[in-house]
Amino acid sequence: MDMFFLVFFITSVLHRQPPSTTMVKPFFLFFLLIICLLSSTPESRRPPPFPRKPSRLLKTQNNLVQLKYTYETRYFDQTFDHFSFNDLPKFQQRYLINSNHWVGPNRLGPIFLYCGNEGDIEWFAVNTGFVWELAPRFGAMVVFPEHRYYGESMPYGSQKEAYKNASTLAYLTAEQALADYAVLITDLKRNLSAEASPVILFGGSYGGMLAAWMRLKYPHIAIGALASSAPILQFEDIVPLDTFYDIVSSDFKRESRSCFDTIKKSWNIINSVGQKANGLDHLAKTFHLCGKLNKSEDLSDWLDSAYSYLAMVDYPYPTEFLMPLPAYPIKEVCKEIDNSPDDGSGSSSVLERIFKGVSVYYNYTGKADCFELDDDPHGMNGWNWQACTEMVMPMSSDRDSSMFPEWEYNSTSYAEDCWNQFRVIPRPTWITTEFGGHDYKSVLKKFGSNIIFSNGLLDPWSGGSVLENVSESVVALVTEKGAHHLDLRAATGDDPDWLVKQRESEVEIIQGWIHDYYMKNKSVFNM
Amino acid sequence: MDMFFLVFFITSVLHRQPPSTTMVKPFFLFFLLIICLLSSTPESRRPPPFPRKPSRLLKTQNNLVQLKYTYETRYFDQTFDHFSFNDLPKFQQRYLINSNHWVGPNRLGPIFLYCGNEGDIEWFAVNTGFVWELAPRFGAMVVFPEHRYYGESMPYGSQKEAYKNASTLAYLTAEQALADYAVLITDLKRNLSAEASPVILFGGSYGGMLAAWMRLKYPHIAIGALASSAPILQFEDIVPLDTFYDIVSSDFKRESRSCFDTIKKSWNIINSVGQKANGLDHLAKTFHLCGKLNKSEDLSDWLDSAYSYLAMVDYPYPTEFLMPLPAYPIKEVCKEIDNSPDDGSGSSSVLERIFKGVSVYYNYTGKADCFELDDDPHGMNGWNWQACTEMVMPMSSDRDSSMFPEWEYNSTSYAEDCWNQFRVIPRPTWITTEFGGHDYKSVLKKFGSNIIFSNGLLDPWSGGSVLENVSESVVALVTEKGAHHLDLRAATGDDPDWLVKQRESEVEIIQGWIHDYYMKNKSVFNM
Repeated sequence: MDMFFLVFFITSVLHRQPPSTTMVKPFFLFFLLIICLLSSTPESRRPPPFPRKPSRLLKTQNNLVQLKYTYETRYFDQTFDHFSFNDLPKFQQRYLINSNHWVGPNRLGPIFLYCGNEGDIEWFAVNTGFVWELAPRFGAMVVFPEHRYYGESMPYGSQKEAYKNASTLAYLTAEQALADYAVLITDLKRNLSAEASPVILFGGSYGGMLAAWMRLKYPHIAIGALASSAPILQFEDIVPLDTFYDIVSSDFKRESRSCFDTIKKSWNIINSVGQKANGLDHLAKTFHLCGKLNKSEDLSDWLDSAYSYLAMVDYPYPTEFLMPLPAYPIKEVCKEIDNSPDDGSGSSSVLERIFKGVSVYYNYTGKADCFELDDDPHGMNGWNWQACTEMVMPMSSDRDSSMFPEWEYNSTSYAEDCWNQFRVIPRPTWITTEFGGHDYKSVLKKFGSNIIFSNGLLDPWSGGSVLENVSESVVALVTEKGAHHLDLRAATGDDPDWLVKQRESEVEIIQGWIHDYYMKNKSVFNM
Repeated sequence: MDMFFLVFFITSVLHRQPPSTTMVKPFFLFFLLIICLLSSTPESRRPPPFPRKPSRLLKTQNNLVQLKYTYETRYFDQTFDHFSFNDLPKFQQRYLINSNHWVGPNRLGPIFLYCGNEGDIEWFAVNTGFVWELAPRFGAMVVFPEHRYYGESMPYGSQKEAYKNASTLAYLTAEQALADYAVLITDLKRNLSAEASPVILFGGSYGGMLAAWMRLKYPHIAIGALASSAPILQFEDIVPLDTFYDIVSSDFKRESRSCFDTIKKSWNIINSVGQKANGLDHLAKTFHLCGKLNKSEDLSDWLDSAYSYLAMVDYPYPTEFLMPLPAYPIKEVCKEIDNSPDDGSGSSSVLERIFKGVSVYYNYTGKADCFELDDDPHGMNGWNWQACTEMVMPMSSDRDSSMFPEWEYNSTSYAEDCWNQFRVIPRPTWITTEFGGHDYKSVLKKFGSNIIFSNGLLDPWSGGSVLENVSESVVALVTEKGAHHLDLRAATGDDPDWLVKQRESEVEIIQGWIHDYYMKNKSVFNM
């Protein structure tokens, strides 16, 4: 049974090593957009470390799931730069394909195209059970193309060469990725004489953004898109800059006001303890860190990550990934924070309770003896590049509504950080110029069609997505208790009714798109 | 009064020299797409020469018209590659702007954006009277951005550097040009606090294709597009490959069957005369060529060009450009071909009559003593590059229906020619992948809105455009007797009723778009 999360940061799988059993590294695989979130914070808030050493458990479960979802792995000789005619070498784009249930070109069998996001495509394939489960019902082919610069789809032949510098990374953009998918699926259909087969797009998080944008930019290629947890409005000032952290905060406040308050006051305590003599050692001891704590901000970032991830994965049933989590894990975290006995030691008590709380996230099994905060804070990785070029998602933390330390987005320091990290200058207004965003309702109403924006309101990314129906065929499916693209996961026996219903609605809508397409083509194809 | 044609090939104006008065060079300024048409023919059919030496007359009249249409010339610091983050120098994109009639941002004054095509933007500005005449009626601002790599908008600072080789030319693509317009207009509106002002796109021929594509790809930037004579379907096999030459041929056949027949049989005669001893000298003498004729194909190409241009500019009133032309010039050409006395000399008679006929095109004033066929057949120019990269428009000439020599499109030799000329490999299926084209009706019906495709059926490019209404708001305005984007020209006292009516329809539709936009924003903007 697929109990994985949708994984967003998977450059890690290229560096598998045996896990340590006595020490839990923070090798939670990062969820897509959290990275840009964290890299958008001022200097004191650095991106979290990137997972480099997935555990054996992970690998094993991955293989198990692969047995469930069978596919053939192929490679496509892909154009490197679709928008110029420089004499650049092509690259091998990996894609996974399964035609077992496809009813074929003559019956216009649909093609389900998952828009690969920023990670190894096998991870997305095995963690997107919904698409696999749907395929037999629709007689559909399933295709998972990998996003360029991730997994095995490396320009210049290797990750090392592709990630060498700003010049080699230059072509890692969403527009090039969309063009990759367009070229690949067009070629695939031509080779199968399946030009008339309707294509449905799927995607979650950044992949959901790609799915929505692809439907908008390539309506001749795909007849509809399911864009799950796709924050296409998280740019410039389209949504309030403090939306993300406000949602994380209210997820906690919703469980417990005192939990929210404890977390909110913990930052100052951590900061002031850190400034005392031996304060950093005290913090390291309290939080069971394996190594020395260099500055209190590192600890704050580690906690910040935990809270943000918890909000994204606040799922209604127990999930297991690297570390198992209970159902609705925020409730459990807050129980620990609220219920730990107050030993009367004031700030020490707060820190102890915070530690107990985040231990639910970092150490639910209780097997970890100590924690490492960060094993590669400056590691080159694709999403950081994307966040430093076009995926600029400004975020702030509000003094009152947020439980996080107050800070304001600063475009200058953001750009400076990017220059220091990659020698690249961000183009913060490019995404809305290319894909829109401002006044999106009237544009989509008049122009868009056949897009589902699905969101769970617990997910902090839902604030940057489309939460209201725009038209008859550009619709929002919102669940109050859902988290980050829960709907794309495989069905489980623990699925609450509202989730089952959400997926049913999605199936109905997709059926409608395909039905309309068939009706339209009935006469042409003698169906 | 603007009696100019819409000019498509104007790299020439960079090379102005005093004209010769006794010798008419074939310096007709080339109409956009004719180039790709001719460069798509097999080896024996080479592209016509590019105009390098416009006459003084041209310059004078140009200045006169400029007095009529006043504008400010500005330069925008434009991103060179929108789709990668290579560290490339920006370039200065020229644009012309006139705000005299604009009612301003508070009243949501519209912005008319002309999509510059492959030439000097001042030429398009002075030859697109319709937009200028419309602006006061709508209280609109007029903006004419120049297409990159044309006119003064040269990457690398000069035409010489920009056109150096395939590597410097690499970024001359339609997608980059559209992104230029999107970035420029977004920035312009932001600076004027005119984000809410509706933008209407205009364009003719390749510029019309850009206008239509921009409405499709950037619906958040422009609320509608008038795409005049825009052959967006002239790719792959969407329309029959012999469409273009069939229309040219039927334009002649429509005037006179015997004219059509005479032209049709002339090719063999030219060919066989050319193979005789002194045959080439005989041909040179018959056609009053200034220099030696090296091969009969050069003469055939010269004639082919004349017929094709005549079909494009078969306008209902006399026009003047470099060479004045009568109203419906094909009728006059055929009169000459049909009426010249048969001197009983057989093939000589045919050649004489052909010469008389094309003299209507090349020498209507009778001032030319001799003709030069070609002054720079291999000159580097922008459209040839575009035709050799993404603007691959396959064409054939049918044995029966065409009056031109029979030939079939050959993609291999086309690619070889491009390799030899530019060291570049065409991507013949890219345009339809990026912009669609196949099954365009159902795609546009479901997805497009607010596009006018205007065409005159005499125009051979009409065969590759949209000639039927697709939906309520994607409409075709077709005139039986119109030629190449006649509607975009300034109004004249000679305009036939059907032309006046066509323009009225266009105005009404555009008014509708703007009205709808205002109604929609009424509450938002307190209008």
